[in-house]
Amino acid sequence: MTDQPLFFRLAVLGCGMIGASVMRAARQSGAVSEIVGYDADAGHRARVAELGIADRVAETAEAAVSGADLVILATPVLAMAEVAKAAAGALRPGATVSDVGSVKGQVAQALDEVLPRHVFLIPGHPIAGAEKSGPDAGSGELFHNRWTILTPQAREDQPYLDAVKRLADFWTALGANVETMDAEHHDLVLAVTSHLPHLIAYNIVGTAADMEAVTRSEVIKYSAGGFRDFTRIAASDPTMWRDVFLTNKEAVLEVLGRFTEDLQALSRAIRWGEGDKLHELFTRTRDIRRGVVDAGQDISAPNFGRGQH
Amino acid sequence: MTDQPLFFRLAVLGCGMIGASVMRAARQSGAVSEIVGYDADAGHRARVAELGIADRVAETAEAAVSGADLVILATPVLAMAEVAKAAAGALRPGATVSDVGSVKGQVAQALDEVLPRHVFLIPGHPIAGAEKSGPDAGSGELFHNRWTILTPQAREDQPYLDAVKRLADFWTALGANVETMDAEHHDLVLAVTSHLPHLIAYNIVGTAADMEAVTRSEVIKYSAGGFRDFTRIAASDPTMWRDVFLTNKEAVLEVLGRFTEDLQALSRAIRWGEGDKLHELFTRTRDIRRGVVDAGQDISAPNFGRGQH
Repeated sequence: MTDQPLFFRLAVLGCGMIGASVMRAARQSGAVSEIVGYDADAGHRARVAELGIADRVAETAEAAVSGADLVILATPVLAMAEVAKAAAGALRPGATVSDVGSVKGQVAQALDEVLPRHVFLIPGHPIAGAEKSGPDAGSGELFHNRWTILTPQAREDQPYLDAVKRLADFWTALGANVETMDAEHHDLVLAVTSHLPHLIAYNIVGTAADMEAVTRSEVIKYSAGGFRDFTRIAASDPTMWRDVFLTNKEAVLEVLGRFTEDLQALSRAIRWGEGDKLHELFTRTRDIRRGVVDAGQDISAPNFGRGQH
Repeated sequence: MTDQPLFFRLAVLGCGMIGASVMRAARQSGAVSEIVGYDADAGHRARVAELGIADRVAETAEAAVSGADLVILATPVLAMAEVAKAAAGALRPGATVSDVGSVKGQVAQALDEVLPRHVFLIPGHPIAGAEKSGPDAGSGELFHNRWTILTPQAREDQPYLDAVKRLADFWTALGANVETMDAEHHDLVLAVTSHLPHLIAYNIVGTAADMEAVTRSEVIKYSAGGFRDFTRIAASDPTMWRDVFLTNKEAVLEVLGRFTEDLQALSRAIRWGEGDKLHELFTRTRDIRRGVVDAGQDISAPNFGRGQH
């Protein structure tokens, strides 16, 4: 619990798993006094009201942001500019507008074009998630010990810097560690650590499903040999991930190109029976694992069984 | 506990994680009366003796199998023929010789060439594992609710069929579900569900480690976005996996070829901004996940955090 609320009214636009988690965590932490939720889907709005995770559910984006000093966009990234545009007229001067999207460059630019000059746009991305989606999948503990990356605009004025500081404090109150970097670097880092892994997982599950000589039931039955980890990742929300690949195209294709080159070399080593080359790579990759475990970034029990984005 | 031991003396050749798990599970289940361990590595032999998971540790493969009615080879697959050859002279008539290798076709053939005609060769593969290796990583519960695949030879004589039945009962006693299939089909199924996933995981971790613009510490720090699942798989034993790719070359290259074709199509869909195609694939892969969860093949808490082979 923080001693004083950091914001008076938080509006969350988009009440899927991440949006619902922001609402739950914000309430648990005491970081905000009041929470208003909005979702384009009437079913989600009704469910948020039933769950009682918002103080109020608004019927429009405009009504939701009215009077809010913190607005967090939590829709799939390609829907953000539209909802921001719909809300723009009701945003109060000095409000902080942020988001939780997995892509920052293209999204920040689109938001900048539709938002009024009198708000502070500070794009953000909490690196946490789950294969499950919808308001019911939200968790107040989702951000605990996870990293949230903020990608502030290139502004040096004190009010903006203060707003960045307050938003960082908000995420800290929700249990996250906060880092800042520029949007372009964020998109490259996430292309490596998140977007490519998801693309590969979707691809391998698709390939397995299409094998004629191996039935789907065999693929499922014997998935304990490694495959099931990929199925968990490949069960992530389709719309969210479609948007990620469409908006972070350049970085994803760059990283995918390198991956493909490396895979060709590996394929050749297998074809030619070059055991030493295989052994060398397989030994080198262990070091990275040690780093992940030492840094406490491995899946911990409460998040067990979840996918990520 | 079984009422009667199924075998009098079990010899386990190779006391790494899987071999040690076979010993622990065999003792816990009461499926065997006596357990003898052997490992080419003197350090492993000493550790097995200290742990007390075998009744006796032999100094040679020959001494280990002497008098045993069940011999299980649990070395990396390319070392199996050599240890089998070393033990061959001491194998008693009617003994069952099996293994735990992740590849069956080439391994079974190599074993068949060095083993005497008077033993029953029944290749096997328990689909369970962990990223950890060595005798200390062994667990008596490792095979619980996992599948063990047996790939019997094309023999119809009753003594051989009886031996297959008894070996299946042994694995059932250790907690596993048992399936039989031919070696070639096993190798294709496992290429899809285990070997390709490992190859891809090793490759993606290698690609990430070689990025100049993204530091290793960033890769580790932000690994919660999907990458860390790959690091766990890519921390599996290098020698074991080198041997898998060298001995199941044909099936792995076949499956890898399909994976690469699919990945090219996916890459093109991203480049051309074909959101519908991406969404269609990402939706389709969810069905497979449901199958994995419904079939109870998802990672369960006791095996949490482990890689597989």
